Amino acid sequence: EIVEAVQNALSDGPLKGKRIVVTSGPTHEPIDPVRYIANRSSGAQGTAIASALRALGADVVFVTGPADVPPPQGVEVIKVETAREMRQAVLDALPADAGVFAAAVADWRVATEATSKIKKTKDGLPTLEFAENPDILAEVSQMTKDRPPLVVGFAAETDDVIANATAKRARKGCDWIVANDVSPATGIMGGSENAVTLISADGSEAWPRMGKDAVARQLADHIAAHLGAD
Amino acid sequence: EIVEAVQNALSDGPLKGKRIVVTSGPTHEPIDPVRYIANRSSGAQGTAIASALRALGADVVFVTGPADVPPPQGVEVIKVETAREMRQAVLDALPADAGVFAAAVADWRVATEATSKIKKTKDGLPTLEFAENPDILAEVSQMTKDRPPLVVGFAAETDDVIANATAKRARKGCDWIVANDVSPATGIMGGSENAVTLISADGSEAWPRMGKDAVARQLADHIAAHLGAD
Repeated sequence: EIVEAVQNALSDGPLKGKRIVVTSGPTHEPIDPVRYIANRSSGAQGTAIASALRALGADVVFVTGPADVPPPQGVEVIKVETAREMRQAVLDALPADAGVFAAAVADWRVATEATSKIKKTKDGLPTLEFAENPDILAEVSQMTKDRPPLVVGFAAETDDVIANATAKRARKGCDWIVANDVSPATGIMGGSENAVTLISADGSEAWPRMGKDAVARQLADHIAAHLGAD
Repeated sequence: EIVEAVQNALSDGPLKGKRIVVTSGPTHEPIDPVRYIANRSSGAQGTAIASALRALGADVVFVTGPADVPPPQGVEVIKVETAREMRQAVLDALPADAGVFAAAVADWRVATEATSKIKKTKDGLPTLEFAENPDILAEVSQMTKDRPPLVVGFAAETDDVIANATAKRARKGCDWIVANDVSPATGIMGGSENAVTLISADGSEAWPRMGKDAVARQLADHIAAHLGAD
């Protein structure tokens, strides 16, 4: 950490003066005071990305759900629980030069959060109605005012990874998608390695499987090159 | 930890030779490979109880869901994720002199776990059907063979705490219920303190609000007194 702190302090890197919003971790969507729906995400990849961007000199706003790993040093940390809270924190953090949306945001929440613990009913089972959560990536990608010049989304897929991620990029309107295969067999979810494909308007670039820190550094380098070229 | 280890090694306490099964933590019930339903539970109270029983000399089998806090030293740790896995681990650990069921077990699970990530449908919302989870406390309380002589359940309630917990004790068939109020306003869920009422056939005993470690020691003392009196 001391080495990291010194590196950050000395950093006059290519992202100096650039403000970058990074989301990370899962969201928790309450069902009632004791139950919630969660996405599996340790927050490790998003944390590594924030750290790598910071090491290149960026001013990072790190919006994180309840993650397993601690937030990185040297960034502004905003802790949230639900997708709605994460959306508000992201909007509050704009404008920015780039947004990297690495959080595993729940697509839906329970429509009506119970204020008391749901008791077993006669037939033993509750009825839960769902509502769609805000789509933070799509909303920011499609902003007409204050849209970050570079918007990077993530696609955690279990099937037809590249096809699904390419379609997601077009549908959301973001610039890049970092796609990965989170099938249980890959061991990526919760593990220390990642195997991603970077999808942009120029096509797709499959990176070899490597540590999440190495993925983060490579992505940060790409972001620095892109923002520097503007 | 060294002090604790020495205490344990020297322990010739009142629970020496007694085998006690303790469950702790939440369960996670998968919806699909990336989503799950969870109960809020840090595992702090169950962990403290296992530690306190160990300190009195008991042989503790600690069956824990994915908790925030590490398991205690000096106990046999069995890690599980779902209620069904927890049930199996508990049954495998019997017979025992006592069972303390402090885990926040999900009452229900999704009936059919999807093997692929659920995609948004045309109307954007999934339909989830629920199934009842095994009721570990009731099953163990009502065993006709190998029922532990002392079965302790927990009731985390948000309303009518004592009435609900007293009814739960009768319904499940356990010997004691440790009841607590987990309304968000109490700050108990996820906090370091607890305010419980111990409910038995003899009536109810409200303990003052104190640290979860102190609650654990007081409960362990009660268990030791009860098992010693047999």
